[in-house]
Amino acid sequence: MGGMGPEATADFFTKLVAATPVERDQDHLRVLIDNDPTVPDRTAAVEGTGPSPVPRLVAMAEGLVAAGAELLVMPCNTAHAFEAEIRAAVPEVPFVSLIEATVDAVAADTSAPRSVGLLATPGTIRSAIYHAAFARRGIAVLTPDADDQRTVTASIAAVKRGHATQVERTSLREVAERLAAAGAAAIVTACTELPLLLKDGDVVSNGVTVPVIASTDALVVRTIEAASAQRVDAVTP
Amino acid sequence: MGGMGPEATADFFTKLVAATPVERDQDHLRVLIDNDPTVPDRTAAVEGTGPSPVPRLVAMAEGLVAAGAELLVMPCNTAHAFEAEIRAAVPEVPFVSLIEATVDAVAADTSAPRSVGLLATPGTIRSAIYHAAFARRGIAVLTPDADDQRTVTASIAAVKRGHATQVERTSLREVAERLAAAGAAAIVTACTELPLLLKDGDVVSNGVTVPVIASTDALVVRTIEAASAQRVDAVTP
Repeated sequence: MGGMGPEATADFFTKLVAATPVERDQDHLRVLIDNDPTVPDRTAAVEGTGPSPVPRLVAMAEGLVAAGAELLVMPCNTAHAFEAEIRAAVPEVPFVSLIEATVDAVAADTSAPRSVGLLATPGTIRSAIYHAAFARRGIAVLTPDADDQRTVTASIAAVKRGHATQVERTSLREVAERLAAAGAAAIVTACTELPLLLKDGDVVSNGVTVPVIASTDALVVRTIEAASAQRVDAVTP
Repeated sequence: MGGMGPEATADFFTKLVAATPVERDQDHLRVLIDNDPTVPDRTAAVEGTGPSPVPRLVAMAEGLVAAGAELLVMPCNTAHAFEAEIRAAVPEVPFVSLIEATVDAVAADTSAPRSVGLLATPGTIRSAIYHAAFARRGIAVLTPDADDQRTVTASIAAVKRGHATQVERTSLREVAERLAAAGAAAIVTACTELPLLLKDGDVVSNGVTVPVIASTDALVVRTIEAASAQRVDAVTP
């Protein structure tokens, strides 16, 4: 389920292909992508200032299942505010949650952080999908203050326009370092555009490198695991 | 129409998104991708040593059209040996030829080459799809000798396995330089895996840089043109 935005979909697809262990074309996963860039803005919907993306997301899920999809995955964090509606519309097909995959990856990290810094769209933060999932694992969530959030939002928009430069990289890193200084033991790039700007190793606080965990990477790992498990199911009586 | 191979499909999709002029997500093209890595080997089919990919390619085209595709594009050169069968199966939808897009891009090049060097799979060379298209424009095609063709084929396989290194880059560049020394005024990377190894600016012969023209880039440009023309048609009475 793609197009939210297209760069993030292409980035996820590229990483999925690269991470799949293969010796020949035929070992790869079959992937059906509906890159639909006209899905209504997810943050506006969460904030109540724009139309709901649910009808389009449900149509996309149903279309992919009709085309043969046996597992659904959606490389857009904010759209997961509507995950329950998608699951309800296509109950016959498993849905891999980007939120659960990311939170599990953070919890499994050897540093076992007590609090993390969340870099995400205003819609993801407002919907509290990460706050709820982290709370279930006893991890607190720190979010940027209003000025810093504007920087994060502007950085995401720059990636979507294909205009992101070193200016966005630097200011995003500074936002992450302020969250680390405020106590975040790890930074979660919880928007699929953000790994294009901020990578593990970029964030240093008090002379210590603070781990950056990308939701995209967590989703790649979880998707390959889930698809492999289905393959095994398919050949095991 | 993807999966031949998945890396090439992801590379084409990424370049298509990057080359589309946009200010917001909604300006992007809607793209439906069927990344099916189980399409039978195209070179083996051309050489008569393996099953035909046509049934799978036709099913893919029909599935995409059923899902709403209004324009078909296939980022695999060798599969274009079966272009006529695909066009015949879905006559209601335009098919953007990678071969024509590439040959047009070479012919439009300011250097207006009289002969070009072709880096491609054995199946693409054996099918003579490029020889025919270039001949119609008065351009001769030089191909690597048997030893050098083995290097090209091995380089493509290395990309497909995700194992390509500097060794493949260097030997592929040397093959291209031998074609240039034999008279090729431009090099065409006519396999969608090859631009991942050899880029414009890499090939130098007698102290002169010889242009490298990638079929993937030509297809990106032609696809955006064709999709934009359809959009204009759709809103013009």
